[in-house]
Amino acid sequence: MERKEISKSVLKRLPGYLSYLKSLPEGTATYISATALANALGMGEVQVRKDLAMVSDGGRPKIGYLREHLMEDISQFLGYDNTTDAILVGAGKLGQALMGYNGFDEYGLNILAGFDAKPLVSETEEGKPIFTMDKMESFCAANKVLMGIITVPAEHAQTVCDQLIKSGIKAIWNFAPVHLDVPQGILVQNQNMATSLAVLSVHLQAQMKEKK
Amino acid sequence: MERKEISKSVLKRLPGYLSYLKSLPEGTATYISATALANALGMGEVQVRKDLAMVSDGGRPKIGYLREHLMEDISQFLGYDNTTDAILVGAGKLGQALMGYNGFDEYGLNILAGFDAKPLVSETEEGKPIFTMDKMESFCAANKVLMGIITVPAEHAQTVCDQLIKSGIKAIWNFAPVHLDVPQGILVQNQNMATSLAVLSVHLQAQMKEKK
Repeated sequence: MERKEISKSVLKRLPGYLSYLKSLPEGTATYISATALANALGMGEVQVRKDLAMVSDGGRPKIGYLREHLMEDISQFLGYDNTTDAILVGAGKLGQALMGYNGFDEYGLNILAGFDAKPLVSETEEGKPIFTMDKMESFCAANKVLMGIITVPAEHAQTVCDQLIKSGIKAIWNFAPVHLDVPQGILVQNQNMATSLAVLSVHLQAQMKEKK
Repeated sequence: MERKEISKSVLKRLPGYLSYLKSLPEGTATYISATALANALGMGEVQVRKDLAMVSDGGRPKIGYLREHLMEDISQFLGYDNTTDAILVGAGKLGQALMGYNGFDEYGLNILAGFDAKPLVSETEEGKPIFTMDKMESFCAANKVLMGIITVPAEHAQTVCDQLIKSGIKAIWNFAPVHLDVPQGILVQNQNMATSLAVLSVHLQAQMKEKK
């Protein structure tokens, strides 16, 4: 179907639908309605109906969507069908864990290589290469890489971000606990673990204080 | 200092300050001002000044903060000094990677054990135990665990969430790409990797379309 402009909030709900649809056992639920999906995920029916209509035109009144088609439409919309090659900068513990995590396959993410100012090893346990920073620009050009993952400490993140952009990167997945300044046309998605932990931890402190 | 009510947005910036302060070489910058910190991190001076005043009363006009004290104040505020014990549910690839990641130490997070409906192994490579789900409630009670980490597929996340709450968990770090319903007093912090990837991937698709 023709691609409509879609809001970030719709986009953020789509992976949840897909994950649920994939989880249904083979041979069951050939058709699925927005209502059934909404009930299963504890969401509002109107919202689910609207979201699905944005990405698939296969819905039929009172019957719903052919499940296989709906899964294809969502996958295609989210770009999971096309593999996105990425590089990662900052091959410490977290960086190496991400490089070794093969669960990203199903989202179409393929981390080709890691880069580090001072690599401690030349490859991960799984055999993915880790290079020094000076190799980054030529590597990105040669492999037409558009996505970069930042797992360096906060104080180096902006420098690395600038280097990634210089290397032709258009989308950045930032795990460093710091805001990044980027020019227009570059998207930064923050995945701030330290921040999440801080929010959770402060909540627990407040809870324990109440108890006293 | 007396604890003030603090907004989530302030809270989310604090880990970045701390990370930068920690990165400064020993013996340099005994004192640091909000201005210097703002410049280093590319942030607004007024915002940094206000944020720091929320967590530390050690700031002196024209001189700034004694760096060691400021680091202590932020750490203490964020609860990094007190170790928070947590359990993790869903000991697949991502779950095991998180259990094995020792970078959480510096944020005071200690993952005691993993739980899984069907554990594939009885412990991680690092020797952390993985139990079946029926052991969870007694484990949490015995170890007074208040934080739970969810790394199960989306369709099982709500069930696991309910089980965690029944086990006495007050704060949930959710890696499943799905919204969780929780009663008042329970905090959920979402760390949705699939969602981040979807947003990045759709951005790249749009970029490539523009080029054509």
